[in-house]
Amino acid sequence: MSRTRIHNLSISLDGFATGEPQSAEAPFGHAGERLHEWMFRTRFWDAETGASGVDDAFARQHGDSIGAEIMGAHKFGPPGWQDDPDWTGWWGPNPPFHTPTFVLTHRPRPALEMAGGTTFHFLTATPAVALETAREAADGLDVRIGGGASVVRDFLAEGLVDLMHLVQVPIVLGRGVRIWDGLEGLEAAYDVEAVSSPSGVTHLTFTRRAAS
Amino acid sequence: MSRTRIHNLSISLDGFATGEPQSAEAPFGHAGERLHEWMFRTRFWDAETGASGVDDAFARQHGDSIGAEIMGAHKFGPPGWQDDPDWTGWWGPNPPFHTPTFVLTHRPRPALEMAGGTTFHFLTATPAVALETAREAADGLDVRIGGGASVVRDFLAEGLVDLMHLVQVPIVLGRGVRIWDGLEGLEAAYDVEAVSSPSGVTHLTFTRRAAS
Repeated sequence: MSRTRIHNLSISLDGFATGEPQSAEAPFGHAGERLHEWMFRTRFWDAETGASGVDDAFARQHGDSIGAEIMGAHKFGPPGWQDDPDWTGWWGPNPPFHTPTFVLTHRPRPALEMAGGTTFHFLTATPAVALETAREAADGLDVRIGGGASVVRDFLAEGLVDLMHLVQVPIVLGRGVRIWDGLEGLEAAYDVEAVSSPSGVTHLTFTRRAAS
Repeated sequence: MSRTRIHNLSISLDGFATGEPQSAEAPFGHAGERLHEWMFRTRFWDAETGASGVDDAFARQHGDSIGAEIMGAHKFGPPGWQDDPDWTGWWGPNPPFHTPTFVLTHRPRPALEMAGGTTFHFLTATPAVALETAREAADGLDVRIGGGASVVRDFLAEGLVDLMHLVQVPIVLGRGVRIWDGLEGLEAAYDVEAVSSPSGVTHLTFTRRAAS
Protein backbone atom coordinates (compact mmCIF):
# COMPACT_ATOMS: atom_id res chain seq x y z
CA MET A 1 0.00 0.00 0.00
CA SER A 2 1.58 3.29 -1.10
CA ARG A 3 1.65 5.91 1.64
CA THR A 4 2.07 9.69 1.67
CA ARG A 5 4.92 10.76 3.95
CA ILE A 6 6.68 13.83 5.31
CA HIS A 7 10.18 13.59 6.79
CA ASN A 8 12.73 15.79 8.51
CA LEU A 9 10.51 18.87 8.47
CA SER A 10 12.15 21.12 11.04
CA ILE A 11 10.16 23.71 12.95
CA SER A 12 10.88 26.20 15.70
CA LEU A 13 9.18 26.04 19.12
CA ASP A 14 6.66 28.50 17.77
CA GLY A 15 6.00 26.33 14.73
CA PHE A 16 7.79 28.15 11.92
CA ALA A 17 9.33 25.93 9.24
CA THR A 18 11.11 28.87 7.65
CA GLY A 19 11.92 32.45 8.55
CA GLU A 20 11.48 35.51 6.38
CA PRO A 21 12.13 37.05 3.95
CA GLN A 22 13.13 34.20 1.65
CA SER A 23 15.67 35.05 -1.04
CA ALA A 24 18.36 33.48 -3.21
CA GLU A 25 20.93 34.34 -0.54
CA ALA A 26 18.78 33.25 2.39
CA PRO A 27 16.40 30.44 1.39
CA PHE A 28 15.13 30.23 4.99
CA GLY A 29 15.14 33.96 5.69
CA HIS A 30 16.28 35.05 9.15
CA ALA A 31 16.20 31.41 10.32
CA GLY A 32 19.38 30.77 8.34
CA GLU A 33 20.38 27.14 8.86
CA ARG A 34 19.41 27.06 12.54
CA LEU A 35 16.48 24.74 11.88
CA HIS A 36 18.73 22.18 10.18
CA GLU A 37 21.90 22.08 12.24
CA TRP A 38 20.66 18.94 14.01
CA MET A 39 20.65 17.17 10.63
CA PHE A 40 24.09 18.37 9.54
CA ARG A 41 25.50 16.59 12.58
CA THR A 42 24.08 13.18 11.58
CA ARG A 43 25.85 10.40 9.76
CA PHE A 44 22.96 10.51 7.28
CA TRP A 45 24.15 13.97 6.23
CA ASP A 46 27.90 13.52 6.65
CA ALA A 47 29.11 9.93 6.47
CA GLU A 48 32.59 10.91 7.63
CA THR A 49 32.04 13.18 10.63
CA GLY A 50 28.34 12.71 11.43
CA ALA A 51 27.00 10.89 14.48
CA SER A 52 24.70 7.90 14.79
CA GLY A 53 21.85 7.93 17.29
CA VAL A 54 18.22 8.94 17.41
CA ASP A 55 18.60 12.01 15.15
CA ASP A 56 20.38 9.92 12.53
CA ALA A 57 17.84 7.10 12.76
CA PHE A 58 15.00 9.51 12.07
CA ALA A 59 16.85 11.45 9.38
CA ARG A 60 17.64 8.44 7.24
CA GLN A 61 13.99 7.41 6.88
CA HIS A 62 13.77 10.27 4.39
CA GLY A 63 14.49 8.20 1.26
CA ASP A 64 13.30 4.70 2.22
CA SER A 65 10.77 3.32 -0.26
CA ILE A 66 10.06 6.72 -1.78
CA GLY A 67 9.05 6.63 -5.45
CA ALA A 68 8.14 10.29 -6.03
CA GLU A 69 8.23 13.70 -4.31
CA ILE A 70 5.85 16.63 -4.44
CA MET A 71 7.20 20.07 -3.56
CA GLY A 72 5.93 23.63 -3.65
CA ALA A 73 7.27 26.42 -5.83
CA HIS A 74 8.88 28.02 -2.77
CA LYS A 75 11.05 24.96 -2.24
CA PHE A 76 12.19 24.77 -5.87
CA GLY A 77 13.64 28.27 -6.03
CA PRO A 78 13.77 31.80 -4.68
CA PRO A 79 10.95 34.25 -5.43
CA GLY A 80 10.91 34.89 -9.19
CA TRP A 81 12.58 31.67 -10.38
CA GLN A 82 9.74 31.26 -12.85
CA ASP A 83 11.16 34.23 -14.78
CA ASP A 84 14.53 32.51 -15.19
CA PRO A 85 14.36 29.83 -17.90
CA ASP A 86 17.77 28.50 -16.81
CA TRP A 87 16.83 27.87 -13.15
CA THR A 88 17.08 24.14 -12.39
CA GLY A 89 16.61 24.18 -8.60
CA TRP A 90 18.95 24.73 -5.66
CA TRP A 91 20.64 21.37 -5.82
CA GLY A 92 23.05 21.40 -8.79
CA PRO A 93 23.17 18.80 -11.59
CA ASN A 94 22.47 15.77 -9.32
CA PRO A 95 19.61 16.65 -6.95
CA PRO A 96 19.06 14.51 -3.84
CA PHE A 97 15.64 13.21 -4.90
CA HIS A 98 16.50 10.44 -7.38
CA THR A 99 12.84 9.99 -8.35
CA PRO A 100 10.20 11.83 -10.38
CA THR A 101 9.68 15.11 -8.50
CA PHE A 102 6.56 17.20 -8.98
CA VAL A 103 6.84 20.96 -8.52
CA LEU A 104 3.52 22.73 -7.91
CA THR A 105 3.51 26.06 -9.72
CA HIS A 106 1.03 28.31 -11.44
CA ARG A 107 3.49 28.67 -14.32
CA PRO A 108 4.37 25.17 -15.54
CA ARG A 109 7.31 24.56 -17.88
CA PRO A 110 8.59 21.47 -19.70
CA ALA A 111 9.94 18.58 -17.62
CA LEU A 112 13.61 18.74 -16.68
CA GLU A 113 15.64 15.56 -16.54
CA MET A 114 18.60 15.76 -14.16
CA ALA A 115 21.40 13.33 -13.30
CA GLY A 116 20.87 10.62 -10.69
CA GLY A 117 17.27 9.77 -11.51
CA THR A 118 15.59 13.06 -10.61
CA THR A 119 13.17 14.42 -13.19
CA PHE A 120 11.35 17.65 -12.30
CA HIS A 121 7.79 17.86 -13.56
CA PHE A 122 5.97 21.17 -13.23
CA LEU A 123 2.24 21.21 -12.75
CA THR A 124 -0.71 23.29 -11.64
CA ALA A 125 -2.99 21.02 -9.63
CA THR A 126 -4.92 20.62 -6.40
CA PRO A 127 -3.19 18.57 -3.70
CA ALA A 128 -5.41 15.56 -4.42
CA VAL A 129 -4.75 15.61 -8.16
CA ALA A 130 -1.04 16.21 -7.71
CA LEU A 131 -0.93 13.25 -5.33
CA GLU A 132 -2.72 11.02 -7.80
CA THR A 133 -0.20 11.96 -10.48
CA ALA A 134 2.78 11.41 -8.18
CA ARG A 135 1.36 8.13 -6.89
CA GLU A 136 1.20 6.78 -10.40
CA ALA A 137 4.79 7.83 -11.06
CA ALA A 138 5.89 6.24 -7.75
CA ASP A 139 5.00 2.83 -9.16
CA GLY A 140 3.90 1.23 -5.90
CA LEU A 141 6.37 3.03 -3.66
CA ASP A 142 5.51 5.92 -1.28
CA VAL A 143 5.11 9.60 -2.14
CA ARG A 144 6.98 12.21 -0.08
CA ILE A 145 5.58 15.69 0.44
CA GLY A 146 8.80 17.65 0.46
CA GLY A 147 7.53 21.04 1.61
CA GLY A 148 7.69 23.96 2.09
CA ALA A 149 5.45 24.59 5.03
CA SER A 150 2.44 25.93 3.14
CA VAL A 151 2.35 22.88 0.86
CA VAL A 152 2.58 20.55 3.85
CA ARG A 153 -0.26 22.44 5.50
CA ASP A 154 -2.42 22.14 2.37
CA PHE A 155 -1.93 18.37 2.20
CA LEU A 156 -2.60 17.96 5.94
CA ALA A 157 -5.73 20.09 5.76
CA GLU A 158 -7.11 17.82 3.04
CA GLY A 159 -6.37 14.68 5.05
CA LEU A 160 -3.88 13.33 2.51
CA VAL A 161 -0.91 12.57 4.79
CA ASP A 162 -0.30 9.12 6.32
CA LEU A 163 2.95 9.78 8.17
CA MET A 164 4.56 13.05 9.26
CA HIS A 165 7.91 13.42 11.02
CA LEU A 166 8.56 16.90 12.45
CA VAL A 167 11.68 18.01 14.26
CA GLN A 168 11.14 20.72 16.82
CA VAL A 169 14.23 22.86 17.36
CA PRO A 170 14.48 24.85 20.64
CA ILE A 171 14.48 28.33 19.13
CA VAL A 172 11.73 30.96 18.91
CA LEU A 173 11.70 32.35 15.35
CA GLY A 174 8.85 34.79 15.83
CA ARG A 175 7.96 35.10 12.13
CA GLY A 176 7.97 33.15 8.89
CA VAL A 177 5.69 30.39 7.62
CA ARG A 178 3.92 28.51 10.39
CA ILE A 179 3.11 24.83 9.97
CA TRP A 180 0.10 24.71 12.32
CA ASP A 181 -2.21 27.39 10.97
CA GLY A 182 -5.65 26.06 10.02
CA LEU A 183 -5.02 22.58 11.45
CA GLU A 184 -7.09 22.72 14.65
CA GLY A 185 -7.81 19.20 15.90
CA LEU A 186 -5.22 17.54 13.64
CA GLU A 187 -4.39 15.06 16.40
CA ALA A 188 -7.83 13.42 16.09
CA ALA A 189 -6.69 11.54 13.01
CA TYR A 190 -3.21 10.60 14.24
CA ASP A 191 -1.26 8.82 16.91
CA VAL A 192 1.36 11.33 18.00
CA GLU A 193 4.71 10.29 19.50
CA ALA A 194 7.25 12.73 20.93
CA VAL A 195 10.88 11.74 21.48
CA SER A 196 13.42 14.25 22.65
CA SER A 197 17.04 13.81 21.63
CA PRO A 198 20.25 14.54 23.54
CA SER A 199 20.96 17.06 20.77
CA GLY A 200 18.13 19.24 22.08
CA VAL A 201 15.56 18.66 19.33
CA THR A 202 12.30 16.74 19.76
CA HIS A 203 11.10 14.33 17.08
CA LEU A 204 7.33 14.32 16.59
CA THR A 205 5.83 11.43 14.64
CA PHE A 206 2.23 11.60 13.42
CA THR A 207 0.96 8.20 12.27
CA ARG A 208 -2.49 8.16 10.73
CA ARG A 209 -4.93 5.96 12.67
CA ALA A 210 -6.49 3.08 10.82
CA ALA A 211 -10.08 3.87 9.86
CA SER A 212 -12.35 2.23 12.44
CA MET B 1 19.10 34.57 45.72
CA SER B 2 15.37 34.85 45.04
CA ARG B 3 14.39 33.68 41.54
CA THR B 4 11.36 34.25 39.32
CA ARG B 5 9.86 30.97 38.16
CA ILE B 6 7.11 29.54 35.99
CA HIS B 7 5.92 25.96 36.44
CA ASN B 8 3.51 23.50 34.83
CA LEU B 9 2.42 25.91 32.11
CA SER B 10 0.81 23.63 29.56
CA ILE B 11 0.70 24.54 25.89
CA SER B 12 -0.52 22.87 22.72
CA LEU B 13 1.82 21.96 19.84
CA ASP B 14 0.87 25.26 18.28
CA GLY B 15 1.72 27.13 21.48
CA PHE B 16 -1.69 28.00 22.93
CA ALA B 17 -1.89 27.99 26.74
CA THR B 18 -5.66 28.35 26.67
CA GLY B 19 -8.43 28.03 24.10
CA GLU B 20 -11.28 30.43 23.52
CA PRO B 21 -13.70 31.85 24.47
CA GLN B 22 -12.99 31.86 28.21
CA SER B 23 -16.05 31.86 30.48
CA ALA B 24 -17.19 30.84 33.93
CA GLU B 25 -18.24 27.46 32.53
CA ALA B 26 -15.13 26.97 30.41
CA PRO B 27 -12.10 28.69 31.96
CA PHE B 28 -9.90 27.34 29.15
CA GLY B 29 -12.41 27.78 26.34
CA HIS B 30 -12.55 25.04 23.71
CA ALA B 31 -9.36 23.50 25.14
CA GLY B 32 -11.38 22.21 28.09
CA GLU B 33 -9.03 20.29 30.38
CA ARG B 34 -7.06 18.67 27.56
CA LEU B 35 -3.96 20.73 28.36
CA HIS B 36 -3.94 19.51 31.95
CA GLU B 37 -4.83 15.82 31.79
CA TRP B 38 -1.15 14.91 32.09
CA MET B 39 -1.10 16.60 35.51
CA PHE B 40 -4.30 15.00 36.78
CA ARG B 41 -2.59 11.62 36.34
CA THR B 42 0.35 12.52 38.61
CA ARG B 43 0.77 11.65 42.26
CA PHE B 44 1.34 15.38 42.80
CA TRP B 45 -2.29 15.96 41.82
CA ASP B 46 -3.86 12.80 43.20
CA ALA B 47 -1.94 11.15 46.04
CA GLU B 48 -4.15 8.07 45.90
CA THR B 49 -4.39 7.15 42.25
CA GLY B 50 -1.71 9.31 40.60
CA ALA B 51 1.54 7.98 39.15
CA SER B 52 5.14 8.80 39.95
CA GLY B 53 7.64 9.37 37.14
CA VAL B 54 8.93 12.24 35.07
CA ASP B 55 5.59 14.09 34.84
CA ASP B 56 5.17 13.89 38.62
CA ALA B 57 8.76 14.98 39.27
CA PHE B 58 8.28 18.09 37.17
CA ALA B 59 4.80 18.85 38.49
CA ARG B 60 5.79 18.88 42.15
CA GLN B 61 8.45 21.58 41.66
CA HIS B 62 5.50 23.99 41.52
CA GLY B 63 5.49 24.92 45.19
CA ASP B 64 9.10 24.36 46.27
CA SER B 65 10.59 27.47 47.89
CA ILE B 66 7.88 29.74 46.54
CA GLY B 67 7.12 32.78 48.72
CA ALA B 68 4.67 34.67 46.50
CA GLU B 69 2.73 34.35 43.25
CA ILE B 70 1.82 36.91 40.61
CA MET B 71 -1.16 36.16 38.37
CA GLY B 72 -3.15 38.01 35.74
CA ALA B 73 -6.77 39.04 35.98
CA HIS B 74 -7.69 36.30 33.48
CA LYS B 75 -6.44 33.64 35.85
CA PHE B 76 -8.28 35.00 38.88
CA GLY B 77 -11.73 34.83 37.35
CA PRO B 78 -13.93 34.74 34.25
CA PRO B 79 -14.46 37.90 32.19
CA GLY B 80 -16.35 40.42 34.34
CA TRP B 81 -15.32 39.15 37.80
CA GLN B 82 -14.35 42.72 38.68
CA ASP B 83 -18.07 43.56 38.69
CA ASP B 84 -18.82 40.90 41.31
CA PRO B 85 -17.74 42.08 44.78
CA ASP B 86 -18.24 38.54 46.13
CA TRP B 87 -15.87 36.80 43.68
CA THR B 88 -12.94 35.26 45.59
CA GLY B 89 -11.30 33.25 42.78
CA TRP B 90 -11.90 29.81 41.29
CA TRP B 91 -10.40 27.84 44.14
CA GLY B 92 -12.85 27.92 47.04
CA PRO B 93 -12.04 28.96 50.63
CA ASN B 94 -8.55 27.34 50.71
CA PRO B 95 -6.74 28.22 47.46
CA PRO B 96 -3.67 26.16 46.49
CA PHE B 97 -1.20 29.07 46.72
CA HIS B 98 -0.55 29.33 50.48
CA THR B 99 1.44 32.56 50.05
CA PRO B 100 0.77 36.20 49.29
CA THR B 101 -0.69 36.21 45.77
CA PHE B 102 -0.71 39.33 43.63
CA VAL B 103 -3.48 39.73 41.07
CA LEU B 104 -2.74 42.24 38.30
CA THR B 105 -5.89 44.17 37.46
CA HIS B 106 -6.82 47.62 36.31
CA ARG B 107 -9.54 47.67 38.98
CA PRO B 108 -7.90 46.93 42.34
CA ARG B 109 -9.95 46.06 45.42
CA PRO B 110 -9.02 45.50 49.07
CA ALA B 111 -6.84 42.52 49.95
CA LEU B 112 -8.63 39.24 50.58
CA GLU B 113 -7.35 36.87 53.24
CA MET B 114 -8.23 33.24 52.58
CA ALA B 115 -7.63 30.04 54.55
CA GLY B 116 -4.34 28.17 54.26
CA GLY B 117 -2.05 31.16 54.02
CA THR B 118 -3.22 32.63 50.71
CA THR B 119 -3.87 36.36 50.73
CA PHE B 120 -4.93 37.92 47.44
CA HIS B 121 -3.58 41.41 46.82
CA PHE B 122 -4.93 43.37 43.85
CA LEU B 123 -2.72 45.85 42.08
CA THR B 124 -2.21 47.86 38.93
CA ALA B 125 1.48 47.77 38.12
CA THR B 126 4.05 47.09 35.43
CA PRO B 127 5.64 43.62 35.51
CA ALA B 128 8.85 45.03 37.03
CA VAL B 129 7.03 46.88 39.81
CA ALA B 130 4.71 43.97 40.54
CA LEU B 131 7.74 41.71 40.78
CA GLU B 132 9.47 44.05 43.20
CA THR B 133 6.37 44.05 45.39
CA ALA B 134 5.99 40.28 45.27
CA ARG B 135 9.70 39.75 45.90
CA GLU B 136 9.48 41.74 49.09
CA ALA B 137 6.48 39.71 50.23
CA ALA B 138 8.29 36.46 49.37
CA ASP B 139 10.78 37.20 52.11
CA GLY B 140 13.81 35.61 50.49
CA LEU B 141 11.95 32.80 48.74
CA ASP B 142 11.17 32.64 45.01
CA VAL B 143 8.33 34.34 43.13
CA ARG B 144 6.13 32.29 40.81
CA ILE B 145 4.51 33.83 37.75
CA GLY B 146 1.27 31.90 37.71
CA GLY B 147 -0.12 32.93 34.33
CA GLY B 148 -2.21 33.21 32.25
CA ALA B 149 -0.34 33.19 29.00
CA SER B 150 -0.37 36.91 28.32
CA VAL B 151 1.09 37.69 31.76
CA VAL B 152 3.82 35.09 31.26
CA ARG B 153 4.59 36.64 27.86
CA ASP B 154 4.85 40.12 29.40
CA PHE B 155 7.32 38.96 32.05
CA LEU B 156 9.38 37.02 29.50
CA ALA B 157 9.46 39.99 27.11
CA GLU B 158 10.90 42.17 29.87
CA GLY B 159 13.58 39.61 30.73
CA LEU B 160 12.25 39.03 34.25
CA VAL B 161 12.04 35.23 34.27
CA ASP B 162 14.84 32.99 35.60
CA LEU B 163 13.25 29.57 35.13
CA MET B 164 10.35 28.46 32.96
CA HIS B 165 8.87 24.97 32.79
CA LEU B 166 6.46 24.42 29.88
CA VAL B 167 4.59 21.22 29.12
CA GLN B 168 3.83 20.66 25.46
CA VAL B 169 0.75 18.54 24.92
CA PRO B 170 0.35 16.79 21.53
CA ILE B 171 -2.81 18.55 20.38
CA VAL B 172 -3.34 21.37 17.88
CA LEU B 173 -5.70 23.94 19.43
CA GLY B 174 -5.74 26.34 16.50
CA ARG B 175 -6.87 29.37 18.53
CA GLY B 176 -6.66 30.93 21.97
CA VAL B 177 -3.80 32.76 23.70
CA ARG B 178 -0.39 31.92 22.30
CA ILE B 179 2.64 31.90 24.57
CA TRP B 180 5.27 32.65 21.92
CA ASP B 181 4.04 35.87 20.31
CA GLY B 182 6.56 38.69 20.52
CA LEU B 183 9.34 36.50 21.92
CA GLU B 184 11.59 36.09 18.87
CA GLY B 185 15.08 35.01 19.93
CA LEU B 186 14.03 34.09 23.49
CA GLU B 187 16.47 31.17 23.45
CA ALA B 188 19.48 33.53 23.39
CA ALA B 189 19.08 34.16 27.12
CA TYR B 190 18.32 30.57 28.16
CA ASP B 191 19.58 27.03 28.17
CA VAL B 192 16.67 24.99 26.85
CA GLU B 193 16.16 21.33 27.72
CA ALA B 194 13.48 19.12 26.17
CA VAL B 195 12.43 15.83 27.78
CA SER B 196 9.59 13.78 26.35
CA SER B 197 7.54 11.64 28.70
CA PRO B 198 5.95 8.24 28.13
CA SER B 199 2.63 10.04 28.73
CA GLY B 200 3.07 11.84 25.41
CA VAL B 201 3.87 15.32 26.68
CA THR B 202 7.26 17.03 26.37
CA HIS B 203 8.72 19.02 29.26
CA LEU B 204 10.61 22.15 28.18
CA THR B 205 12.86 23.79 30.76
CA PHE B 206 14.26 27.27 30.14
CA THR B 207 17.07 28.12 32.57
CA ARG B 208 18.42 31.64 32.36
CA ARG B 209 22.12 31.73 31.49
CA ALA B 210 24.44 33.37 33.93
CA ALA B 211 25.47 36.83 32.76
CA SER B 212 28.91 36.52 31.14
